[in-house]
Amino acid sequence: MNAPDTPPIFPHRHLLGMANLLPHEIDQLLDLAELEVEVSRRQDKKKSVLKGRTQINLFFEASTRTQASFELAGKRLGADVMNMSVANSSVKKGETLLDTAMTLNAMRPDVLIVRHHAAGAVALLAQKVGCSVINAGDGAHEHPTQALLDALTIRRHKGRIARLTVAICGDVLHSRVARSNILLLNALGASVRVVAPSTLLPAGIEQMGVTVFRDMREGLKDADVVMMLRLQRERMAGSFVPSVREYFHYFGLDAEKLAFARPDALVMHPGPMNRGVEISSEVADGPQSVIEEQVEMGVAVRMAVIQALLPGLGSNA
Amino acid sequence: MNAPDTPPIFPHRHLLGMANLLPHEIDQLLDLAELEVEVSRRQDKKKSVLKGRTQINLFFEASTRTQASFELAGKRLGADVMNMSVANSSVKKGETLLDTAMTLNAMRPDVLIVRHHAAGAVALLAQKVGCSVINAGDGAHEHPTQALLDALTIRRHKGRIARLTVAICGDVLHSRVARSNILLLNALGASVRVVAPSTLLPAGIEQMGVTVFRDMREGLKDADVVMMLRLQRERMAGSFVPSVREYFHYFGLDAEKLAFARPDALVMHPGPMNRGVEISSEVADGPQSVIEEQVEMGVAVRMAVIQALLPGLGSNA
Amino acid sequence: MNAPDTPPIFPHRHLLGMANLLPHEIDQLLDLAELEVEVSRRQDKKKSVLKGRTQINLFFEASTRTQASFELAGKRLGADVMNMSVANSSVKKGETLLDTAMTLNAMRPDVLIVRHHAAGAVALLAQKVGCSVINAGDGAHEHPTQALLDALTIRRHKGRIARLTVAICGDVLHSRVARSNILLLNALGASVRVVAPSTLLPAGIEQMGVTVFRDMREGLKDADVVMMLRLQRERMAGSFVPSVREYFHYFGLDAEKLAFARPDALVMHPGPMNRGVEISSEVADGPQSVIEEQVEMGVAVRMAVIQALLPGLGSNA
Repeated sequence: MNAPDTPPIFPHRHLLGMANLLPHEIDQLLDLAELEVEVSRRQDKKKSVLKGRTQINLFFEASTRTQASFELAGKRLGADVMNMSVANSSVKKGETLLDTAMTLNAMRPDVLIVRHHAAGAVALLAQKVGCSVINAGDGAHEHPTQALLDALTIRRHKGRIARLTVAICGDVLHSRVARSNILLLNALGASVRVVAPSTLLPAGIEQMGVTVFRDMREGLKDADVVMMLRLQRERMAGSFVPSVREYFHYFGLDAEKLAFARPDALVMHPGPMNRGVEISSEVADGPQSVIEEQVEMGVAVRMAVIQALLPGLGSNA
Repeated sequence: MNAPDTPPIFPHRHLLGMANLLPHEIDQLLDLAELEVEVSRRQDKKKSVLKGRTQINLFFEASTRTQASFELAGKRLGADVMNMSVANSSVKKGETLLDTAMTLNAMRPDVLIVRHHAAGAVALLAQKVGCSVINAGDGAHEHPTQALLDALTIRRHKGRIARLTVAICGDVLHSRVARSNILLLNALGASVRVVAPSTLLPAGIEQMGVTVFRDMREGLKDADVVMMLRLQRERMAGSFVPSVREYFHYFGLDAEKLAFARPDALVMHPGPMNRGVEISSEVADGPQSVIEEQVEMGVAVRMAVIQALLPGLGSNA
Repeated sequence: MNAPDTPPIFPHRHLLGMANLLPHEIDQLLDLAELEVEVSRRQDKKKSVLKGRTQINLFFEASTRTQASFELAGKRLGADVMNMSVANSSVKKGETLLDTAMTLNAMRPDVLIVRHHAAGAVALLAQKVGCSVINAGDGAHEHPTQALLDALTIRRHKGRIARLTVAICGDVLHSRVARSNILLLNALGASVRVVAPSTLLPAGIEQMGVTVFRDMREGLKDADVVMMLRLQRERMAGSFVPSVREYFHYFGLDAEKLAFARPDALVMHPGPMNRGVEISSEVADGPQSVIEEQVEMGVAVRMAVIQALLPGLGSNA
C-alpha cells in the first residue's frame, strides 16, 4: 500500500459527467478499463487493490444492471460494498437528499455511487461529502460510465473513436445515455448523428454538435455505429406516448433499416431492451450486435473509474 | 488453484432437477454435503475455495430462507455473492427473462442461482448462459436442493434412504418440494407415499411411482419419515381454498395422527410453517421434529452443490 | 485465533437494552468503541478479527442508517454480513417471528442484529437462539447502541458523562432512543431533563429519574447537551398529530431557544431529521451540532459491541 498522500492517478476527485473531461483523460480511463477486461474473464476475478475500502451504492432510482455492475466492480477490486436502496428508507421519513448523503459520508466511505431522478442532484451531493462520487445517472442529465463503456466497446471493435460516424437513435429527449455519449464521442472526434421524431428531441440539441435526422434510413446511411435508445414510456405524459406499433415502424431498428448503415456497423443498446419497440430481436441477437459485450465492458469501465478516482492507489491500480 | 481446465468433480454443469441425476450422483452430492456440515459449526466458517469467483442469486420470486441459505453457502465458500431481487427491477421495464439472464451472464458470474415462478424457466435460462445454473425452485416443477437437504437430514438419522417408508403429506399439487423429493427418494430406493385430499393431488401422480392415500392415519401407518408440506393458499383460486379448520382436522399433523407412524419417525417440513394449519405446534416443536436441522443441512447441501458444479476446483472441494 | 472456549470480554451474551448494564460495563463498551474510531478513519478500514464469522441483520422495520451502520461495522470487522429485509419475506407467508428466528439460527450465525416494531420482541427472540443478539430497536422500548453512540459523542467532547445536564426534547412518547438514553445517562451520573408537551410524554416518565419540563426555554436553561428527538408523526393517530408550524414554534430547536443552554452546549439528533419541525437548519448545521459525528460514532460503537459479545476473540478485540 502506498502512503496515504499518494496522489490519485486521475486529476479529478469525482466523475459527474463527460462534460468536464478532456480527451486525453477519457483515453486514460479507457486504457485503464482495457486492462480490467481480462480480470473478469479469469477464474479468480478478485484483486486486493481496494481491500479495506468502503464503496456505497446509493440508488434513489431502482436499477438492476447499473447497480449490479458497480457492485461487482467494487467487490472484484476487493472493497466492501454496501447497497442503499433509498426507495424504502429514511427518505420516506422526510429526510433530505443532503442529510442522507451526510449521514452516509459520516460512515467514512471511500466512494459513493449515486443515481438520482433529478438532474444535478449528484453534483450537489458531491460538493458536500468527503469522498469520491460517481454519477450513476442523474435525471436526463448524464450517465458517464455508460458513455465510457460504449466507447470502450466501439474502440475494441473499430480501433478508434475518431472519425467514426455514430447514429444515436430514438428517445433522445429522456436519455442521459444519449447526452453523455454525445459529449464523449464529440470530444474524441467522432461524427455524431441523432435520429428521432421531433417529439423525442430536446430543444437545441443541434447546439451539442450533432446532426439531426428525423428519418432512420437517412440517419443510418453509412454509419459505423448504430446506438439504439430505450423508449422510456414511463417518463412520458399520457398524450405523448407514441403507439408502439407505429414507433417500431418508423424508428425501430430492423434488418431493413440496418442495411442502410455500413455492412460492418455495430449495433448497440444500453438496455434494458424493449424488443419489438425500438429494436427487433433479429437485429438485437444478430451478428452485428455488441449489446452483451457492452454489459461486460461496463464492469471493466467501473473497475477502472473507481481506481482512477481513489487516492493512495498509485502504481497498484 | 488448479489449472482452469481441471474438470469439475461432478459430471453435470447445472443442477436443474432431480429428474436427470443417477443414484450414485445423488450419493456423491450427499457425501460432499456431509463434509460441509462441520464447516458451519466452526467459529471460522469460511473456506477460500471459491475466492475470486462470483455467485449471483437471481430471484424472480421473493424467498427468505432459500436465498439466505444460498447466500451464506456462497460466502462461506469465499465467493463474492450478489443478490438480484428482480421484483423491482428491469423486468418491470419490460425486459424479458432471457435478456435479464444474458445481461447477468455478460458480467461473468461463475454460478447463477435462479428462482422463477414458471416451471421450466430455469432450464431455458441455463441453455443460454456460460456459467453453472442451480434451480432454486421453478414454479411447481422442481426444487432440487430442498430434496437433497431433506435426504441428507434423513440419512444422518436413519443411516440410509433405501427401504425407508416416507409419507409426503398435504398440498402436493402446488409443491415443487414434493416433486423433487419423490424423484430423489425413488431413485435411492425408498418407498414413497403421498397423502392428500383429491383436490390437492396433481393428475397422474401415481405414475411417479408413489402410493396415494387420502387418509392421514392410513398414509402414516408405520412410516419412517413424515414430510409435511406448506398449504400454499396464495396459489389457490378462491373457491378451492380449503377451510383452515377443516384442513387441520383432516390433514394437519398432530400427535394423535403422528402416533400411527413408527415411534422413531422423523417429522419434517420445508418451511415456512403454517402452525395450526398443516402442523400443530406440539409436533413441530416435539422430539421427533428435525425441522431446524433441515435448515442447517440446507447450507451444507448448497455449499456442496456449488463446489460440485464449478470447474477448476478439483481436489480443493 | 484463540481457543473456542475463550470467554467473551464482556459478561453478557446479548445487548438487549441499557436497563441491565452496570456503569462499569457501559464504560468498558465506550472504551472499546474509542479504539475503533480510528479504524474507520484509515484507508484500510478492515480488521480480520471476525473473519469466518456470520452476522445477520434481521430488520422487521426498514431502517437506512441503523442497518447500514451495523452492516459496515460487521464488514469492517471481517465478518460475512447478510441482510434480511423481512418486509417482503416468509413473514408474509404467515411465518411467526420465532420460526423466522429459529430458521436463521439454524444457519449458524454468530450474531443476530434485530429490529422489530414490538417492544420485547428482541428479548423473546434472544431466549430462543444459540448466538448473540443485539437489539437494534424494539418498538418504543430500547435502542441501546444509539444510547452508546450518543454517550461516546458526548464523552469525546465533554470528557465525561457524570454531572452533565442533558435535556432530551420532543417526542419522548414514541422514542426508544429517549428511553435508552435516560437509562444510560442516569447510570453514568448525568442529570437528565425531559422537555416535551404533555401529549408526547409517556405516563410515569418521572419515575425514570428525570425532571420534566413543558417549556423549552426552562428545560434548556444551562444544559450541557441538547438532544432533539424526531417527531414521529407516522406513529400518531390522526387527531393527535400536532401542527408542524405550532410544534416548531413551541418545541423546535432554533438559535433563540438554544441560547438558553450553555454556550458550549452540544446539539444532538439521532436522525433522520425533520428540518423545520423539531430543529432548524441553522442549528442543525451550526457550530454546536455534533449530529454527523454521532453517525460516525455509531459505526465505532457497533464494532465494539459486536466484538464484546462474541466468544473466542479474547485479546484480539
